[in-house]
Amino acid sequence: MSTAFTPPLDDLRFVLDSLIDVPAVQALPGHADTSRELIDAVLEEAGKFSAQVLAPLNREGDIKGSRWKDGEVTSAPGFRDAYAQYCESGWNALPFPVEWGGQGLPNIVSSPVSEMVMSANLSFSLCPMLTAGAVSALVLVGSDHLRKTYLPKMIDGSWTGTMNLTEPQAGSDLSLVRTRAVPEGDHYRVSGQKIFITWGEHDMTENIVHLVLARLPDAPEGVKGISLFVVPKFLVNPDGSLGARNDVRCASLEHKLGIHASPTAVLNFGEKDGAIGYLVGEANRGLEYMFIMMNEARYAVGVQGIAIGERAYQQAAAYAHERLQGRDISNPRGPTAPIARQPDVRRMLLTMRAITEANRALSMTLASLLDHGRAGNKEAQALAEFLVPIHKGWATEAANEVTSLGVQVHGGMGFIEETGAAQHLRDARITAIYEGTTAIQANDLIGRKTARDGGAAAAAIAAQIRAAVDALDERDPDLTAIRARLASALEAFEASAAWVVQNYAKDPIAVHAGSVPFLVLSGLTCGGWQMARMASVARRRLDAGEGDAGFNTAKLKTARFYADHLLTRVAGLREQVLAGASAIAEFPEERF
Amino acid sequence: MSTAFTPPLDDLRFVLDSLIDVPAVQALPGHADTSRELIDAVLEEAGKFSAQVLAPLNREGDIKGSRWKDGEVTSAPGFRDAYAQYCESGWNALPFPVEWGGQGLPNIVSSPVSEMVMSANLSFSLCPMLTAGAVSALVLVGSDHLRKTYLPKMIDGSWTGTMNLTEPQAGSDLSLVRTRAVPEGDHYRVSGQKIFITWGEHDMTENIVHLVLARLPDAPEGVKGISLFVVPKFLVNPDGSLGARNDVRCASLEHKLGIHASPTAVLNFGEKDGAIGYLVGEANRGLEYMFIMMNEARYAVGVQGIAIGERAYQQAAAYAHERLQGRDISNPRGPTAPIARQPDVRRMLLTMRAITEANRALSMTLASLLDHGRAGNKEAQALAEFLVPIHKGWATEAANEVTSLGVQVHGGMGFIEETGAAQHLRDARITAIYEGTTAIQANDLIGRKTARDGGAAAAAIAAQIRAAVDALDERDPDLTAIRARLASALEAFEASAAWVVQNYAKDPIAVHAGSVPFLVLSGLTCGGWQMARMASVARRRLDAGEGDAGFNTAKLKTARFYADHLLTRVAGLREQVLAGASAIAEFPEERF
Repeated sequence: MSTAFTPPLDDLRFVLDSLIDVPAVQALPGHADTSRELIDAVLEEAGKFSAQVLAPLNREGDIKGSRWKDGEVTSAPGFRDAYAQYCESGWNALPFPVEWGGQGLPNIVSSPVSEMVMSANLSFSLCPMLTAGAVSALVLVGSDHLRKTYLPKMIDGSWTGTMNLTEPQAGSDLSLVRTRAVPEGDHYRVSGQKIFITWGEHDMTENIVHLVLARLPDAPEGVKGISLFVVPKFLVNPDGSLGARNDVRCASLEHKLGIHASPTAVLNFGEKDGAIGYLVGEANRGLEYMFIMMNEARYAVGVQGIAIGERAYQQAAAYAHERLQGRDISNPRGPTAPIARQPDVRRMLLTMRAITEANRALSMTLASLLDHGRAGNKEAQALAEFLVPIHKGWATEAANEVTSLGVQVHGGMGFIEETGAAQHLRDARITAIYEGTTAIQANDLIGRKTARDGGAAAAAIAAQIRAAVDALDERDPDLTAIRARLASALEAFEASAAWVVQNYAKDPIAVHAGSVPFLVLSGLTCGGWQMARMASVARRRLDAGEGDAGFNTAKLKTARFYADHLLTRVAGLREQVLAGASAIAEFPEERF
Repeated sequence: MSTAFTPPLDDLRFVLDSLIDVPAVQALPGHADTSRELIDAVLEEAGKFSAQVLAPLNREGDIKGSRWKDGEVTSAPGFRDAYAQYCESGWNALPFPVEWGGQGLPNIVSSPVSEMVMSANLSFSLCPMLTAGAVSALVLVGSDHLRKTYLPKMIDGSWTGTMNLTEPQAGSDLSLVRTRAVPEGDHYRVSGQKIFITWGEHDMTENIVHLVLARLPDAPEGVKGISLFVVPKFLVNPDGSLGARNDVRCASLEHKLGIHASPTAVLNFGEKDGAIGYLVGEANRGLEYMFIMMNEARYAVGVQGIAIGERAYQQAAAYAHERLQGRDISNPRGPTAPIARQPDVRRMLLTMRAITEANRALSMTLASLLDHGRAGNKEAQALAEFLVPIHKGWATEAANEVTSLGVQVHGGMGFIEETGAAQHLRDARITAIYEGTTAIQANDLIGRKTARDGGAAAAAIAAQIRAAVDALDERDPDLTAIRARLASALEAFEASAAWVVQNYAKDPIAVHAGSVPFLVLSGLTCGGWQMARMASVARRRLDAGEGDAGFNTAKLKTARFYADHLLTRVAGLREQVLAGASAIAEFPEERF
């Protein structure tokens, strides 16, 4: 079975060339050195590292997983060495501020690097991803002392970070957090149980820095009484060396459907005297800080959906070339042919490919907006914030579909674990759940991102989509077809957004009932927008004889496929949004 | 975690009352004794057996699985006893001919019994399902001697049966079968390797009767050179006692994504002298016999999709009632509320429920057609044959969606195996693959079932849907909405079927490219037809004060939901069928 991973460098370069204003990012503060040559070199090296070091560990990581014994966790075979190499090569430091030892590269570089790492080994990638979340929290609101103590080690990867939010009774609803933090001198004593802590315990580094949401004794109830604390596994002496073991213990690891190599820990804080913790930022503002960092984490999980889709696609395509079964329809008396010649296999592969390419292009467009937003461009930031829940929600829902198609392309072999296709399905399944379920993303989209600004961000996106529609050259039959489909999707997007704005306050149940369909409609339409832009470029290049003609033809046909098979879903989603609430509201609850 | 199973007796009775002409089935030869009281009693007892004996074994069966050692297979804990009880209670004999010891009950009774067994324990249910296939083959074309030797034991369940079709190089394409059968006196010596043999080896019975596709030495190539053989695990002496161990050996079991308790065997025939086998029917007609029996097996797998969806729904609904998280939108200052009050959770539960109820109703309508067809009604048989691939294909694709939603309703807990929701997702995944993938069903639908009769069966179904549309009372707002949605879906179904008929010969690639979307469109529309019929009955009962008002309201609202959220998908599917082929045909194969 082919489980190799080929970094999608061609597609990433095409996106950078055709969709991203790279010079505009280079002109942002701190990015003057981010030349196109540097970007290409970084992507190439990251691709090699992902393919050669991380991808070969993915299958055994699934089989053997991380193992818990007496509170200690042994990481999956090879992970410890791979992590050391990852840090030595500087990959961990890529996106972080230069002043703390990072390389300060923009999102348009760090995001495709992450994508390849995630494709190669989703379980592995979660460890640096969680560290990045913790680093961001400290950069954002940590005291100078906390920053100096923790950031250099976390940025060079010597210590990893975790995010401790969830408790058994507090998942999507963090107002229910019960973990307590009691002041004691310059620190606090933290006690309580946290669950679902990704890479919450492991043996890859000598220390782990837990960021923990907890309540002070006098804190108000609900979300306004939650504070953020640093709770290191080992205390840190004034000279930076490690001190005593803190009172935090890994009680168990979860047995999960997928990402077996990523240890999902139950952490007990304060079983003895209370774990020593340090307040991050101001008291009672913990959830607010989390929300500020959430864009980043949600963005990253959306990229996971794309990454796992890419990996599943590559494996399915390889199998479709190899597997001989049935005849070529256009040559029914010919020899047994590869299934890649079967129209329905081609339909499945193109669905996987079209979704992946569209969502990758959207993620890169969003990365660029996040770069401009971080540099203070408010308009870019507003667009980015509108797009984050769409990207996170749809790219991860799509990952479920894409990886399931990957199994289907394999037929019976897809159901056999040895093949590896099923692992992608299992691994992908968490992405639409963690960092906020799709419904949580959709709530954010309809409320904070659409209704609150009266639809301004939605209208700005719509204007950009309109421009992409208008730019489609009607002399080409593919572009003409794409134009009609995208115009129709855009109209549905605008109508749905307007409906959300109008009804959010007066009929909240109806708007919430259609929130996920609105998110998916938006995701499909924004993907179509990117596909249209890429199709225009591919057509121009074909006409000019520029670049790889095969690549450009494939891109154009994939965009056409997206229009005919994905954008056509929008009509039904529109009905779900605008006219789907009555049964949801009226079904008698006790009859479920 | 709630993993109990509640037999859906209310819904099954409602379907029998409102959709099925039970007296017409009773009037068929051999079914005079099938009174409504008998049916109700059988369903109730089967429900009890499923819930009390089979459902409790489902989770441990997943964890422990069947185990292979030195060619022998130990079934999962409790399965052997449960199987003995199953046979003692007569469940195995339910659908089989009375002359061979069966109970001869019609499909409208045996199908819902099977559904409940499958809901309770899909892995378990596969063993009697495969036996049923083997029994049918022998009833259909076995010699008197073979019938007398094998049927009574297989019908009372003392021996189980298997179907040996697939080989490593011959899956969907059985023309590639290589297993050989060489004549020797009154029998044959069979040698070759078969894979994916469900319940191919186990310890639940003293003998296993393998039905095996193989080639005679002088057989023509391709599908017209395949013959069918009985190859028992133990030879049978003239007095019916067991003789020597035959030369068939279980080389291994597959490690699968799901249905872990169902042993999927690699069987090696003839490692020594050749396994002794007996020709079933005439030489070289094996595949033809398989096709005759295929309706039954494909029908049964479609029911599996419904069954696993029902189980996943029940578990998700129970969790949604128990899990407190967030507030009730209509009472935002109230206490933390069950998530069953969240609009998006309700949307997910209703999607699961609506699909399951619609597909169950269609499966029962189809069961009745199969009963009439078996009794010689050609018109009913033609409609049944048209509906079988739609039912098999769509109910199993839908099972992937429904079980994935079941995980999503659980949030993070859904990803934890202990919860049980993930098992349903894993178990369901095979149903759209075995007994012919969805693409194989779709090929059958567009070719043998739609194009070959010039669309006659499709038109007959359309006429029945039209009648259901016309019967919807426009004084009720729900029925009015359903009417508009179903009429629109029907129009798309008719246009798509007409297009398939017109283009099947002249543009086969285009028709095959849209075959799965056409199947899904047909499945959704036929589900909408059944939902409309049930909604009319529910409305009438509500108006007349008949039956359980809560049940009837739930049915009406579920039908309304189906119209607004499922039938609305048809518009997009129609475009995929009618205008989706170009990119599929034109994408350069080497670029996948």
